[in-house]
Amino acid sequence: MSALFVVSTGPGDTALLAPRAREVIAASSDLVAYGLYLDLLPDLCADKQHHDLPLGQEIERARLALNLAAAGKTTALMSSGDIGIYAMATLVFELLDRQLQGLEDHPEWLDVNIEVVPGISAMQAGASRVGAMLGHDFCTISLSDLLTPWQTIEKRLHSAGQGDFVVSFYNPVSKKRDWQLNTARDILLQYRPAATPVLLGRQLTRDDETIRMLTLAELDAKDVDMFTLVSVGNSESRHISYSGVHGEQQWIYTPRGYRKKL
Amino acid sequence: MSALFVVSTGPGDTALLAPRAREVIAASSDLVAYGLYLDLLPDLCADKQHHDLPLGQEIERARLALNLAAAGKTTALMSSGDIGIYAMATLVFELLDRQLQGLEDHPEWLDVNIEVVPGISAMQAGASRVGAMLGHDFCTISLSDLLTPWQTIEKRLHSAGQGDFVVSFYNPVSKKRDWQLNTARDILLQYRPAATPVLLGRQLTRDDETIRMLTLAELDAKDVDMFTLVSVGNSESRHISYSGVHGEQQWIYTPRGYRKKL
Repeated sequence: MSALFVVSTGPGDTALLAPRAREVIAASSDLVAYGLYLDLLPDLCADKQHHDLPLGQEIERARLALNLAAAGKTTALMSSGDIGIYAMATLVFELLDRQLQGLEDHPEWLDVNIEVVPGISAMQAGASRVGAMLGHDFCTISLSDLLTPWQTIEKRLHSAGQGDFVVSFYNPVSKKRDWQLNTARDILLQYRPAATPVLLGRQLTRDDETIRMLTLAELDAKDVDMFTLVSVGNSESRHISYSGVHGEQQWIYTPRGYRKKL
Repeated sequence: MSALFVVSTGPGDTALLAPRAREVIAASSDLVAYGLYLDLLPDLCADKQHHDLPLGQEIERARLALNLAAAGKTTALMSSGDIGIYAMATLVFELLDRQLQGLEDHPEWLDVNIEVVPGISAMQAGASRVGAMLGHDFCTISLSDLLTPWQTIEKRLHSAGQGDFVVSFYNPVSKKRDWQLNTARDILLQYRPAATPVLLGRQLTRDDETIRMLTLAELDAKDVDMFTLVSVGNSESRHISYSGVHGEQQWIYTPRGYRKKL
């Protein structure tokens, strides 16, 4: 029996890792993942065959996972957050589709039993750390123009602005890419107030987590790196702060409706 | 010490419940939730004080949770999926905001220590059951016009269409509401092909789960109830099927990029 588990490892803290993810990793002999994901789960990942391909070799990683599973190794293909959201899961199905189209020569892939295990994505970890930022309609936009033309991304930014969606940016910057985030900010500023709350969540739920709350006008790519989630509120999102017995508290929430405007 | 845990219980299957959610429920003396959520976790919820308010009394439920916590009861306010997504979390912060604005008379609420525990939402459970439907930019839209004017929802549907986002509908229908979903379908059909893959996921990850894959043209409110997630692919999403040793397989995936169009 050929089994491939396509497994989400969540935002970082293992207290947010689904028991099902833990189960299927434990059941696997072979793990395909970035090394840094495996480091998060040292107990679980010991005594397994690790297959660590460099960043950028995503297709090769999906192909390797299918090949291992087809060869009879119970295999877990892992990535952080939700593996179905801007991550490895879709590549597995793209490869199966290519096989069906005659573009690959791996009929054995079609005999692999596949289970996808969902997980908590960065936008959810971020929203929960600052309260309830995703309390109403929201969207996600990847700012990477490696595989999506910039004009498509730009159109989508305008749509997000027009529709007044809460927006979470994935891949906001990279070592070689830094102008897109400020352009995205400027587009959203055409549609929502400069004071709109923004969350910068870096290394969310991990030991070195940092959380910053600022305004859309203050958002700047220089404060953001590859490990940062950027979420922008909608026109009704609120940033509140107060002092209580637990000290200074700050939250961002997005109301569940537009009742105040009626 | 006054503690309020705002807890996501995930899509249904307890194998997808975060360990942190389990921990904080165990640590609580008082649970505020619909009865049906408590039924999912009989072991965990026994020997606790249950506060079960009827559907529709969401504000009262959030208020009760804050009051219990402020009175020194360690309290868990629970809802299914991700409590931060179209659920109870945002109401807690709306109440705190009302207190800060002088619209409530509960200064003791500001001394409650609040932790929000994120969870796997229905759209993620659905996407994982059919492969990788959320593989590229997506949005969520609630079709309930109880708190959001229909004209705002309609504008958002057009934005989702123009931006070619994968769209997940929350609150697609209710006992008193059934025309919105077909109107939403007709709007999206202005922007994407009639053959666009659609997922209907009912009671996702539960014992009585049903999964249907159809096309946007075939989507009809008569096949959808309050327990159904409706996700609509983008213009590039693919529905594939084949036979292998595990029988007939069907998947929907959304490619990670728009490379084919270049």
